[in-house]
Amino acid sequence: MNTVQSISNLRQIRNDLPSPVGLVPTMGYLHEGHLSLVQRARQECANVIVSIFVNPTQFGPHEDLDAYPRDIPRDFALLEKYGVDLVWVPELEQMYTPDFQTWVTVERAAQPLEGKMRPGHFRGVTTVVAKLFNSVLPDKAYFGQKDAQQVVVIRRMVKDLNFPIDIVVCPIIREPDGLAMSSRNGYLDHEERQAAQVLFRSLSAAMSAFENGNNDAGQLREIMTGTIMSEPLADLQYVSCADPDTLEELSGSISRALLSMAVVIGKTRLIDNFLIGD
Amino acid sequence: MNTVQSISNLRQIRNDLPSPVGLVPTMGYLHEGHLSLVQRARQECANVIVSIFVNPTQFGPHEDLDAYPRDIPRDFALLEKYGVDLVWVPELEQMYTPDFQTWVTVERAAQPLEGKMRPGHFRGVTTVVAKLFNSVLPDKAYFGQKDAQQVVVIRRMVKDLNFPIDIVVCPIIREPDGLAMSSRNGYLDHEERQAAQVLFRSLSAAMSAFENGNNDAGQLREIMTGTIMSEPLADLQYVSCADPDTLEELSGSISRALLSMAVVIGKTRLIDNFLIGD
Repeated sequence: MNTVQSISNLRQIRNDLPSPVGLVPTMGYLHEGHLSLVQRARQECANVIVSIFVNPTQFGPHEDLDAYPRDIPRDFALLEKYGVDLVWVPELEQMYTPDFQTWVTVERAAQPLEGKMRPGHFRGVTTVVAKLFNSVLPDKAYFGQKDAQQVVVIRRMVKDLNFPIDIVVCPIIREPDGLAMSSRNGYLDHEERQAAQVLFRSLSAAMSAFENGNNDAGQLREIMTGTIMSEPLADLQYVSCADPDTLEELSGSISRALLSMAVVIGKTRLIDNFLIGD
Repeated sequence: MNTVQSISNLRQIRNDLPSPVGLVPTMGYLHEGHLSLVQRARQECANVIVSIFVNPTQFGPHEDLDAYPRDIPRDFALLEKYGVDLVWVPELEQMYTPDFQTWVTVERAAQPLEGKMRPGHFRGVTTVVAKLFNSVLPDKAYFGQKDAQQVVVIRRMVKDLNFPIDIVVCPIIREPDGLAMSSRNGYLDHEERQAAQVLFRSLSAAMSAFENGNNDAGQLREIMTGTIMSEPLADLQYVSCADPDTLEELSGSISRALLSMAVVIGKTRLIDNFLIGD
């Protein structure tokens, strides 16, 4: 397994790699969710490149950039085991020079939900992903459905800016009790970890209702809200029943939707989602 | 010479072209300035692609989008004569779908000068150039020094977003009396055409002063302003003596600078510039 830091070294190695090349962009501290993306890329691509970069521009001023967990040696060992060809760990100083001043912005799809709670977050995501795409020039790039709005926003960017890249989205990987895998789950203490089940429970309750014939968007939101409110340690930021392509909030009867939510447990902010319908 | 409209056809043909591939992005209605870019690309590249697209997003609401001159048959004949391999005439509906919502924005370098007079102009330019780059995937792209700020802004975008593309800048091509070639020169009537010489005259006066030892930025701006004011048909929008890399306005003694200006003659807005110093 090759590892590189500078973009020039990356380009040199990348130029000699036969297609298709798959990119799995990560912020490191890998869990089974990331590894499922790597496995999918390994199945589909002649070469798999993983980037590890805790991108500062997607964190708000009061978010957990400094606390965000890092363990590069462990990440390298895992990626080696999963047969990755090349790991790129970009240098912060090279990614954002002092005169850096160019941003990629998706408008409507980045406004609601996470975009509303985390101003500037998606501008940081789309900008760094554009940089990763232009540096690696992958044929395919792999993202997790866990970050559902990120998927919508990146698909939008790829289409609008004509990136010649297939975006592959992989299902959420969950703990046995349903909690979606996240590098931030490690922040939770024992009691909070129990309380964190409420996200999966509330999404499951709404999906059951939908499958039993309740297709009213407002009522599905109420079911999710009610379940979250029943957990004393949970602080609800939003619940949503939205169009999966545009993320516009739905009302009345629906045939398909993205159910999503953000919940703070203690000091840890968790998100989760289900796609329902055809 | 191949000609294509759709991006999928473009990609199909482009994939079979040996490198290096050079792109000359134009808005058509070609003059000797454009053709000098094509000639340079022809010398340096195995394959030359020219795009012709009057990009609506770089025109302001009260600008000359509808009046902008177009003559595709004449452009094709010229490009054939100059040995171009492929001409891409993107379809407006494919470039900007109704759900289009992604923008590339350069901040500081796009603020002054043209950016101040034409709000949103550079956002349109950088966004469409990113789209052209991602569609054509050129090794080199050719721009004219005539649009000096555009060159600075695009170089900034390429560096910040890591586009793997060499930006080649070619000198301004001028009429015998010094007027910089522009598709907009055709808007000028006989009297205005005479008056339009004042841009070159004022830049020449400032350069002479600089070469004769006057290296004060403020005085160079005054020399340019004074010359423009002496022409009754000329309406000065700005003169500038700025850092060629950052476009920050200079003061005091200088060793190099971009002298630039925008002047309205009748209803026609003209720009011109000189690079002075080492």
